Amino acid sequence: MAGMNVNGRQTRTIWPAGDERAVDIIDQTRLPCDYCVVRLRSLDDAIGAIGSMQVRGAPLIGVTAAYGVALALKHRADDARLRMAVDSLAATRPTAVNLHWALARMQRLLQALPPSVRADAAWHEAALLADEEVDRCFRIGRHGLSLLRACPRKSERLEVMTHCNAGWLASVDHGTALAPIYAAVAERVDVHVWVSETRPRNQGLLTAWELRQQGVPYTLIADNAAGWLMADGRVDLLLVGADRIAANGDVANKIGTYLKALAARAAKVPFCVAAPRSTIDFTCRNGAAIPIEERAADELRWVHGLDAKGELGRLRQVCDDASVANPAFDVTPAELVGALITERGSCLALPEALLALYPEAPHA
Amino acid sequence: MAGMNVNGRQTRTIWPAGDERAVDIIDQTRLPCDYCVVRLRSLDDAIGAIGSMQVRGAPLIGVTAAYGVALALKHRADDARLRMAVDSLAATRPTAVNLHWALARMQRLLQALPPSVRADAAWHEAALLADEEVDRCFRIGRHGLSLLRACPRKSERLEVMTHCNAGWLASVDHGTALAPIYAAVAERVDVHVWVSETRPRNQGLLTAWELRQQGVPYTLIADNAAGWLMADGRVDLLLVGADRIAANGDVANKIGTYLKALAARAAKVPFCVAAPRSTIDFTCRNGAAIPIEERAADELRWVHGLDAKGELGRLRQVCDDASVANPAFDVTPAELVGALITERGSCLALPEALLALYPEAPHA
Repeated sequence: MAGMNVNGRQTRTIWPAGDERAVDIIDQTRLPCDYCVVRLRSLDDAIGAIGSMQVRGAPLIGVTAAYGVALALKHRADDARLRMAVDSLAATRPTAVNLHWALARMQRLLQALPPSVRADAAWHEAALLADEEVDRCFRIGRHGLSLLRACPRKSERLEVMTHCNAGWLASVDHGTALAPIYAAVAERVDVHVWVSETRPRNQGLLTAWELRQQGVPYTLIADNAAGWLMADGRVDLLLVGADRIAANGDVANKIGTYLKALAARAAKVPFCVAAPRSTIDFTCRNGAAIPIEERAADELRWVHGLDAKGELGRLRQVCDDASVANPAFDVTPAELVGALITERGSCLALPEALLALYPEAPHA
Repeated sequence: MAGMNVNGRQTRTIWPAGDERAVDIIDQTRLPCDYCVVRLRSLDDAIGAIGSMQVRGAPLIGVTAAYGVALALKHRADDARLRMAVDSLAATRPTAVNLHWALARMQRLLQALPPSVRADAAWHEAALLADEEVDRCFRIGRHGLSLLRACPRKSERLEVMTHCNAGWLASVDHGTALAPIYAAVAERVDVHVWVSETRPRNQGLLTAWELRQQGVPYTLIADNAAGWLMADGRVDLLLVGADRIAANGDVANKIGTYLKALAARAAKVPFCVAAPRSTIDFTCRNGAAIPIEERAADELRWVHGLDAKGELGRLRQVCDDASVANPAFDVTPAELVGALITERGSCLALPEALLALYPEAPHA
């Protein structure tokens, strides 16, 4: 198991917890202030971790859900139990398709097996799925690196802007949008990353934390500043991850991605989306068919942080009874996407190009 | 003195403090949590209030600076004192041109008078300037109302999106971008306002607070959500204020305005900018000549809020030593602006159109 260097230890973002049938995760709601490992022992633990965003990021949500099925089948593995586990995990978050992709794969495999061997098989399959996701992200890094090398730059240093966290923390290892950046830095390409705060959940702070761990130079900005920086000629490439890519190349990603894509087009900055196969939904014709999660109003009504005791909590209600709209994702039309970077290589955001990369894909 | 109804009292945002030569302001850094009135007695008080953003918003900054000159001349009003007062007030904030406009007007008047009468004249002129700004904002409201009435709407309710706070709090009374909304609500036009949080200083919470005081329906959103809401057909009009409008119609306004303008164009949502004469800089040829203020990194590094004692402070450093870029404004090119709403009427964002409204304007 490779992984990122955190406090001198190489670690993934999710890993089997010793001899027990359990997995450890990093509680991402505590980052960047505190690095805490949390053990998931049951289906409810896995559901809670995904729902509360202790784990987030499309590939990591998928892998956590696969482990969630394995945890659910530890003591009972009949059809009803399997179905209940899959259904309740599927209901945690609607937009990132990796969740449904991983659950469908687990269900397909396990349904075909007798209940007596399902617990072991589920455990094995979840670990396999995690390893495959690591491999896919590694390959995204290699393909993306070629793209970074070829990207015209305005100065010596390559200036990449990203949004949200599509890094190591969002996957099992390497990341999606950040994988090419880590690959570039490893080969001594001079890269600097513009990191958007990413309100309301501030996942940009996760990106800042993880880039700092790896010694990658970055600058934190308010989401509002992204357009101005691109117009001002300070960005060479916009590079983000995805939560679901429709068959026509439309991209659902963290809310605010669409605004950045518009600014990139206006400033003639190339816009690339990095995502593994598990994020591509060939059954979804276009962006209009992607469900957009609406999250709690409190994400905007309260300042969140650590209280005097160091406990994460709601610090102060800044806006009492404000009516709030809080869509967590938006859809960027395929026409604004310059390239999709997958584990099989880069392609245009076009249905034919996607099918050429994945000829075995199920047709909608 | 009219003003907005706050806690049952009609009040402006800045007013002479009784018999003393002093002015009272609302400490806007405490809103929306607490409504506190602060007395400014000296030049230093005025400089501090503008620099710390206890007062903010282009028209209000201008009026506060005019009163700052009057406060500076209370006990000594020679040429050196006048020059020092004007220079130190001018250095507080670079982008909003109303500050320089008001100071130039004060200096022109006072320089021509003997020092012995300057204190009284400055006091009188600052009050006059405040009254004129109120009148200009009132007229912006009337002209903007016609525009709101004519705006095609997708449903019964007119859906207006705004950014930052260009309301009563940003001016002396009425507001700029919010003035037409207040005028519309007074005439029973059914209006709903989408309010952007406006990171990093969250001035959208000021807009939410002020709309709630006046009973105007609104919904608070993360800045990132603006593009998606427009693309989703939920906005009829984008209406903002300005910190400086160049002679060619380019608009400097709160960082993030440009992203919203791009999204408005993509969604065919009209984009209007409301601003009084004091915001138009005929000596500035285009947006590239507008200085963009870079504010402190701590606005992004810390969660600000009220601590356990109710004191406003830096609650928690969320990102230790992050490198930060924090431009406070951006420039929206004139070609993205559908209309400018001024106290003399609405016009296209074109040099000829601006000069037709203000034929007496000094040429650059």
